Amino acid sequence: MKYYIGVDIGGTNLKAGVVDTTGQIISESSVPTGADRPQDVVLEDIIGAVKTSIDSSGIDPKEIKAIGMGSPGMIEQDKGIVVYNNNLGWKDFHIGEKMTESLGLPARLENDADAAALGEVVAGSAKGAKSAMIITLGTGVGSGYVIDGKIFRGCEFGHMVIAYGGRQCTCGRKGCFETYCSATGLINMTKEAIDEHPYGILASTARKAGGVSGRTVFDAADDGDTFAQRIIDEYTSYLACGLVNLINGLQPEVISIGGGIGKQGERLLAPLRGKVNAEVYKGITPPKIVSCTLGYKAGLIGAAMAARDL
Amino acid sequence: MKYYIGVDIGGTNLKAGVVDTTGQIISESSVPTGADRPQDVVLEDIIGAVKTSIDSSGIDPKEIKAIGMGSPGMIEQDKGIVVYNNNLGWKDFHIGEKMTESLGLPARLENDADAAALGEVVAGSAKGAKSAMIITLGTGVGSGYVIDGKIFRGCEFGHMVIAYGGRQCTCGRKGCFETYCSATGLINMTKEAIDEHPYGILASTARKAGGVSGRTVFDAADDGDTFAQRIIDEYTSYLACGLVNLINGLQPEVISIGGGIGKQGERLLAPLRGKVNAEVYKGITPPKIVSCTLGYKAGLIGAAMAARDL
Repeated sequence: MKYYIGVDIGGTNLKAGVVDTTGQIISESSVPTGADRPQDVVLEDIIGAVKTSIDSSGIDPKEIKAIGMGSPGMIEQDKGIVVYNNNLGWKDFHIGEKMTESLGLPARLENDADAAALGEVVAGSAKGAKSAMIITLGTGVGSGYVIDGKIFRGCEFGHMVIAYGGRQCTCGRKGCFETYCSATGLINMTKEAIDEHPYGILASTARKAGGVSGRTVFDAADDGDTFAQRIIDEYTSYLACGLVNLINGLQPEVISIGGGIGKQGERLLAPLRGKVNAEVYKGITPPKIVSCTLGYKAGLIGAAMAARDL
Repeated sequence: MKYYIGVDIGGTNLKAGVVDTTGQIISESSVPTGADRPQDVVLEDIIGAVKTSIDSSGIDPKEIKAIGMGSPGMIEQDKGIVVYNNNLGWKDFHIGEKMTESLGLPARLENDADAAALGEVVAGSAKGAKSAMIITLGTGVGSGYVIDGKIFRGCEFGHMVIAYGGRQCTCGRKGCFETYCSATGLINMTKEAIDEHPYGILASTARKAGGVSGRTVFDAADDGDTFAQRIIDEYTSYLACGLVNLINGLQPEVISIGGGIGKQGERLLAPLRGKVNAEVYKGITPPKIVSCTLGYKAGLIGAAMAARDL
């Protein structure tokens, strides 16, 4: 058997694991990432986590063929360099080269969202799809695209304007997909609605839960709040708009929705599919729209799978 | 030397030509396409045009290695089938297989816009670019994307909504890129402006030219019409919006503008570049924005070049 090491560099934790060729995790290990530490110290921790995961896997190290890493920030994949990561305080971190030196294995570096997308295609929600786009609805809107089992690098549509002259985005543009469709965008819509109707079901749902989150409107709608239903309708209309742009433009076979909002399942997907199917360009087959299923494991699995051809 | 046959299937004319490996046309031949004719008759005409172009090229037929075709309509590239072409009345036209049978050469079929994009990358405005997007501003907005010298099939962003709830598009959506940025879109803006100000420079520019075209506002602006200048400003703002969506999303190294509007050169490109550069996501290098240079030859050259790896 052949096995691969996956490393997922998160803002909070670094995860390393041994993964088989089908994307199953054999063992995994986690350490705190720790922002603003010297890069050499971080590197030692990553190598430690990798060794721990190999030890606990019971796999003969000779069967481990390569190491794949997924990192946030600005990266140069081909050179294995994290050029810049603001949150972690990293700059010109030659992580690929250093991992190869330390572990004697070829190494690949990918963007973390791209790696997660590959994970979902190899072993998760988009398993076996010829082309799949993973859209993460969290703090922002992330996108990753996998074609024929390979990452199509740099497919990033969070800052695609869908509403010319619309809501101000942090990027400087107005009306970006992200501004309307991130979890942050939905939470803003929800808060605005609560300010307008402070005594409705929506407001009480938020109070009971200790604050507004991406699921507040879905829970309130389940409790029969027609006002929450209207917000879901508006939100899914914007989301359908952005997704249909990508479907008309690139024709993915599957779209997997991840992030906090992706966890709302059919409460989100059922209205979304109706709107998408009605809007897609004539002649294009609408994609299957599903929720991501691997959670945090997607990044680890995908990172390992990105190293399969090394 | 190796040579390739290119065939460009246009709505009006079928063009065939012999092209060398660098994208230079050695000879070409053209016949009317003729809509609604039996497919076998059309096929004979295409073969006739190919043979004429070979004869007039003076090339030894043994040096011709393959044939590439660019066709409009819905096509299945891998099977060499034009599935459906409404304008020409074609249905399930197995053109690839039939060309191979008749000429004894391997054949490749591509979308005509994709072929034209490859032509511009091999021998035209985007020569040598690692990645180039060709945006055609004509009756509609067409797009073709070439990465590492290969067509990235099915990249079609004309029906990307940039203005949620905006102008009605023929596709059923509201606010598509095409609705604002096609030549048709600009002509509509110009006509609306003339209706509002029937005695200005813009109106007289149109009258002198015998009607409104995509160049009317540019000519009127050259004559000092501030009103035409405002339309150019509005038009290039929408165009920059759509292009920046694609730049943020896919990061092409070059964008070449073709179609009638692309011929306006710096009158279009200078204001466009300013807006694009101001809006592109921080950290992304804005692409070079140029006009297409090959005109109708792009489709013929690109079709031939798409057959190079057969």
